[in-house]
Amino acid sequence: MAKRKVCVVITARPSYSRIKTALQGIKDHPDLELQLVVAASALLDRYGSATAYIEKDGFIPVSKVFMVLEGENPTAMAKTTGIGVMELATVFYNLNPDVVVTVADRFETMATAVAASYMNIPLAHVQGGEVTGNIDEKVRHAVTKLADIHLVASESAKTRVIRMGENPAKVFNVGCPSIDLADQVLKSPAFDFDPFIKYSGVGADNIDLKKGYVVVLQHPVTTEYGSARKDIEETLYAIKDLDVPAFWFWPNVDAGADGTSNGIRTFREKEKPKHIYFFKNFEPNDFLRLIYHSSCLIGNSSVGVRESSYLGVPTVNIGSRQAGRDRGHNIIDVDYNRADIEKAIRHQMSHGLYTSDHVYGGGNAGQKIAEVLATAELTFDKKLAY
Amino acid sequence: MAKRKVCVVITARPSYSRIKTALQGIKDHPDLELQLVVAASALLDRYGSATAYIEKDGFIPVSKVFMVLEGENPTAMAKTTGIGVMELATVFYNLNPDVVVTVADRFETMATAVAASYMNIPLAHVQGGEVTGNIDEKVRHAVTKLADIHLVASESAKTRVIRMGENPAKVFNVGCPSIDLADQVLKSPAFDFDPFIKYSGVGADNIDLKKGYVVVLQHPVTTEYGSARKDIEETLYAIKDLDVPAFWFWPNVDAGADGTSNGIRTFREKEKPKHIYFFKNFEPNDFLRLIYHSSCLIGNSSVGVRESSYLGVPTVNIGSRQAGRDRGHNIIDVDYNRADIEKAIRHQMSHGLYTSDHVYGGGNAGQKIAEVLATAELTFDKKLAY
Amino acid sequence: MAKRKVCVVITARPSYSRIKTALQGIKDHPDLELQLVVAASALLDRYGSATAYIEKDGFIPVSKVFMVLEGENPTAMAKTTGIGVMELATVFYNLNPDVVVTVADRFETMATAVAASYMNIPLAHVQGGEVTGNIDEKVRHAVTKLADIHLVASESAKTRVIRMGENPAKVFNVGCPSIDLADQVLKSPAFDFDPFIKYSGVGADNIDLKKGYVVVLQHPVTTEYGSARKDIEETLYAIKDLDVPAFWFWPNVDAGADGTSNGIRTFREKEKPKHIYFFKNFEPNDFLRLIYHSSCLIGNSSVGVRESSYLGVPTVNIGSRQAGRDRGHNIIDVDYNRADIEKAIRHQMSHGLYTSDHVYGGGNAGQKIAEVLATAELTFDKKLAY
Amino acid sequence: MAKRKVCVVITARPSYSRIKTALQGIKDHPDLELQLVVAASALLDRYGSATAYIEKDGFIPVSKVFMVLEGENPTAMAKTTGIGVMELATVFYNLNPDVVVTVADRFETMATAVAASYMNIPLAHVQGGEVTGNIDEKVRHAVTKLADIHLVASESAKTRVIRMGENPAKVFNVGCPSIDLADQVLKSPAFDFDPFIKYSGVGADNIDLKKGYVVVLQHPVTTEYGSARKDIEETLYAIKDLDVPAFWFWPNVDAGADGTSNGIRTFREKEKPKHIYFFKNFEPNDFLRLIYHSSCLIGNSSVGVRESSYLGVPTVNIGSRQAGRDRGHNIIDVDYNRADIEKAIRHQMSHGLYTSDHVYGGGNAGQKIAEVLATAELTFDKKLAY
Repeated sequence: MAKRKVCVVITARPSYSRIKTALQGIKDHPDLELQLVVAASALLDRYGSATAYIEKDGFIPVSKVFMVLEGENPTAMAKTTGIGVMELATVFYNLNPDVVVTVADRFETMATAVAASYMNIPLAHVQGGEVTGNIDEKVRHAVTKLADIHLVASESAKTRVIRMGENPAKVFNVGCPSIDLADQVLKSPAFDFDPFIKYSGVGADNIDLKKGYVVVLQHPVTTEYGSARKDIEETLYAIKDLDVPAFWFWPNVDAGADGTSNGIRTFREKEKPKHIYFFKNFEPNDFLRLIYHSSCLIGNSSVGVRESSYLGVPTVNIGSRQAGRDRGHNIIDVDYNRADIEKAIRHQMSHGLYTSDHVYGGGNAGQKIAEVLATAELTFDKKLAY
Repeated sequence: MAKRKVCVVITARPSYSRIKTALQGIKDHPDLELQLVVAASALLDRYGSATAYIEKDGFIPVSKVFMVLEGENPTAMAKTTGIGVMELATVFYNLNPDVVVTVADRFETMATAVAASYMNIPLAHVQGGEVTGNIDEKVRHAVTKLADIHLVASESAKTRVIRMGENPAKVFNVGCPSIDLADQVLKSPAFDFDPFIKYSGVGADNIDLKKGYVVVLQHPVTTEYGSARKDIEETLYAIKDLDVPAFWFWPNVDAGADGTSNGIRTFREKEKPKHIYFFKNFEPNDFLRLIYHSSCLIGNSSVGVRESSYLGVPTVNIGSRQAGRDRGHNIIDVDYNRADIEKAIRHQMSHGLYTSDHVYGGGNAGQKIAEVLATAELTFDKKLAY
Repeated sequence: MAKRKVCVVITARPSYSRIKTALQGIKDHPDLELQLVVAASALLDRYGSATAYIEKDGFIPVSKVFMVLEGENPTAMAKTTGIGVMELATVFYNLNPDVVVTVADRFETMATAVAASYMNIPLAHVQGGEVTGNIDEKVRHAVTKLADIHLVASESAKTRVIRMGENPAKVFNVGCPSIDLADQVLKSPAFDFDPFIKYSGVGADNIDLKKGYVVVLQHPVTTEYGSARKDIEETLYAIKDLDVPAFWFWPNVDAGADGTSNGIRTFREKEKPKHIYFFKNFEPNDFLRLIYHSSCLIGNSSVGVRESSYLGVPTVNIGSRQAGRDRGHNIIDVDYNRADIEKAIRHQMSHGLYTSDHVYGGGNAGQKIAEVLATAELTFDKKLAY
Repeated sequence: MAKRKVCVVITARPSYSRIKTALQGIKDHPDLELQLVVAASALLDRYGSATAYIEKDGFIPVSKVFMVLEGENPTAMAKTTGIGVMELATVFYNLNPDVVVTVADRFETMATAVAASYMNIPLAHVQGGEVTGNIDEKVRHAVTKLADIHLVASESAKTRVIRMGENPAKVFNVGCPSIDLADQVLKSPAFDFDPFIKYSGVGADNIDLKKGYVVVLQHPVTTEYGSARKDIEETLYAIKDLDVPAFWFWPNVDAGADGTSNGIRTFREKEKPKHIYFFKNFEPNDFLRLIYHSSCLIGNSSVGVRESSYLGVPTVNIGSRQAGRDRGHNIIDVDYNRADIEKAIRHQMSHGLYTSDHVYGGGNAGQKIAEVLATAELTFDKKLAY
């Protein structure tokens, strides 16, 4: 029997971490053939060029698609998505996959979802059914309505997908592949690289990591476009006041990235902070090792509610971006407020590691996803289940 | 207070009939300004050039967007949608509307929905929550997940939209604007034009319409791409055998239109049917008058379950395209089978007009839609209501 | 040494005939690797689906790109070209060719030319430097200004390309590959197929081809958009009056195709001509055999000035489309005038075959093109040579 | 008589300076109506947001089109152009201009040129016929082959356009509108603003401008993509060694901008130069006043051969970007070599102002352009003039 051709589209660096072990699972499965497409910000230097990591990990893209329209505003996000639909349709037509996999809820995932579903190609959606507080909310659930197979990451997500009218037989709680990486790190936690040498972050200097440090990763919130700059400044000054070594990661591409990025740039020019080290991005496992050994993870990244819960890293989650997401007991939520942020960080730094939470699965999601893709019935027409 | 700018995007001839009275309601409302965009097949001669009717009715488009990619296959549908997202984003950016309205469930409505929702423009969706049996099912519910205001046409649609997690306060059962047209026809039913003269249909001849005739309108079903030709032939030969004057309307643009259209063309070449008259399309009110005076409406158009129920026209609904839709007691459902189709038509012809069903509202949906658009709170961020 | 990767983009049926022997030459050359891309109307049924013939001839496309926007007006032509630039850029990026080949002067060739030249890929242009009387004129010479290697088909074309400022060392008079096909037919002219059986043309009937017949192929002229219908009617009625068996071929995609096509359709409905047989298209060699044995070729196709001159077929060339093109002595030029067209046809029918003209080369252009592509220096930056 | 509708498309900040007085001429002309479209990098903050200056100058765009695809590589340039063709076709269709004006030779001008010419709209090209040494060379002459009216800036340009086969009656030497601005500055040269206050350049400090300063503006050269970083470093270190106050302007969008920009960023991080002040961009007249009072203009901007010749500013032109362009006697040409650059600057600084050269017209090009657009016969079909 011919192998099933599984086309996975990766459009951003964080999506790659979310799907990496599933890529490996698909590649290793005897009944599956992986067709990897890399697109959008995953190809761009200024968003950390995920493609370099992908290829280094041994995954060779069959097609690369530039599709990010400049503007870093909502109009550009819409047009990027339109370009993506057009171009991915051509890619899918030429690859002729048996199933297309789209990851999570970034705005460009809609491009993958529309192209595949309109072309009557069965669509599998990884990480549907979750809830947060921004445009991703619309995108994620709209993709659910276009998808045929739902590879959700938690029981509450499964419940929500079914309540939205999806056929329960098509909803699989496989856990989150990002937890698989956290599991690898838990099993082999040694902090075995020098981040300043390996990643040559701007602003780096000699520090003793053993004395404690924090990690910051804060994205703009797309429905709060306009306040991105003010929001980031609260965090910047909280970290400044804290006066503890901090690894700060630039945000990914999103409307408002300019507000966030400009806020960071201006802060750096003006304050010339000595204890904050700015990085573009780390390889996923290095990043997890970095946070595992940190005193606190700060910001609004989903890593804070997901991998960090499995690792037990003390976390301060800022603002609305992760609102409603399943999370472990390792998290303190705060608003965009300099004083509150600093206070929460100090509390977490004094707490130390939490015990591991398994709310997003047990660390074998990649294999489970491959197995579902190899065995599930592949269909592309569906109806509301009620 | 400035008027709210309401941008309505019309992409196809049937969508215009579905929204016409709402356009009038918006245009007439003292607190609203209409921004009409005409796009896709609504601009194309071979799909009946809706734009001519729209302008004749006094609605002047502020922008026209060609976006239909040739191919009449699912790949072309996807790419058409991608082009639409790109171009409508530019149109919305320049028009800067307060709310965008998208109609029903044609595949291109997704272009309107993605562009508006990604640009943080409140999106109102007319006719969500209905169920049928094809790709429209995915599109319709995905648009629901992108929309902020739901202008549904029936109680069962309202129930479904809420079950899918939408905020009940944002779901308004306004009825279907197409019923408003049917209501006008019921109040003024005179068949006051000669269809052969006014529309110069191919194949026309002298017939006495008072002696009875049937009307056929059958679209390809997108998830059954490939069988379109076989499906249409069953109906063609049923009508041939029936030997009663028949008005046959060409299908609209959809993947598979070629199969349906080729089936019709080949049939005409081969059978040279004398009693079947082929038309591209009528103005909506003329079409409703035509079916109101007909002995039977045949095919799979939504007119058959919607306007015809209000008018009480005996109807034979073929295949899966309207499966699950609310309908009146005037309808007989049959499969793609020449003998069954003919038998059902004969039964309906002998029955005569049914009493009117109000399942899709009372004929004032256009005004109700305008009122909701003028008064509802306009927001663009939302969460699942559960 | 690695083979040079030669990417040839074919966008239409007539372009395929123009380049077929060069494809063979490239495929057969030990130092070249063929990367064939099929796009635009070459993929569409209603323009004769060139892709089927291409694959039957043993050329396997590495990528297919749907890009024809519906509308059949100049706006659609522009947008088709824009889509083509976008998509071909992605294709070229992924194929990474050493040289891209674009053919002749159809409007979509600009898409190939812009994408390749902007991406710093050396561009070879087949059939530049010719003159005619329509939009092709702008396209052809603009492509010349983007191209690095000029594979022209006649001495006068070579002179013009050099006069426009191109480096003479980069201009190669290889002759026209379409003449290679004519040469094959001259060497093996047997009319060994039944056109009615093999191509099932609409309107076919039993006729005795040995008693003489004519062939008609008339395209709309893009700068005369609007008069296409009137123009075609002059030819239609000339052929009607002539009352000799006629093979009539539908036009290719161009703005105005609707005018031409509608003119033909209406004529057929109204006049029901008994001696005119309508065909979509023939395989190139069959078409050349058909015209070789015909009494006269009529219309405005470039076949009339090119292959027919080599074959010596009596030809009536109508209107401005081939104005200024090199031609043999086998041609009579007439305007869009029913009486003039008929008179010219009658003169040519009584003349019989002319002697062969070699103005477009000696029948070995395909090999010569492959040789230039294998040996010419490949550069992508150039300056005016004066 | 209805006014002629003149649609001018501006895609970049430098293009605006090149056309500003023509915009004014068109706006003021009693027989013309200006339709201004702003697109591409002219809308983007990181390229100096020309749109803000345009609107401040009283020109209100009727449409804005985001079209720059991220990547800053040749593939992105091609795709940007494709997007532009698509979107500008829609804009032109809705505006229905009598003539479209495209400016100079940036890669996106091809989008304007293809859309207009394919839509049979007469196309006027400003600044054709010039010669330089990069991809612009291909673009500029290809646009000439698509254009119907040539508004050239010098006699040598006129000669070249005619040699390329254009009808001499359609070629008008109007001079360069950028010289009109220089003429305004010559008539009113006071340096009446503080650049550090008005433009808040990064790195600014108190300096005495009267003691002399230089100005640097160096773009990446698109056919030398890859060497952009090395090239800029030669200039950076020459300026560092020079140790004279320097105003340095960031480059515009082009393939390779990343190389150039990264080179500048790294230099700043590493060398922390105290006497170099970095600016995004000035309003055109402020920029001309800045260079008029400078000791030397350095780089490869066309300002160096054009406005600076009229103003008599001592200029050092680096590399191939302006090769072959008409120029005054105020210019010294050097290669990418740190020592040569420094030496040439020192020579120019000791020379002082040159006398004015009128090779690009007498400072009234804007009015002349308006007059040609108001009176020239508008046609869209043309042939080679030989």
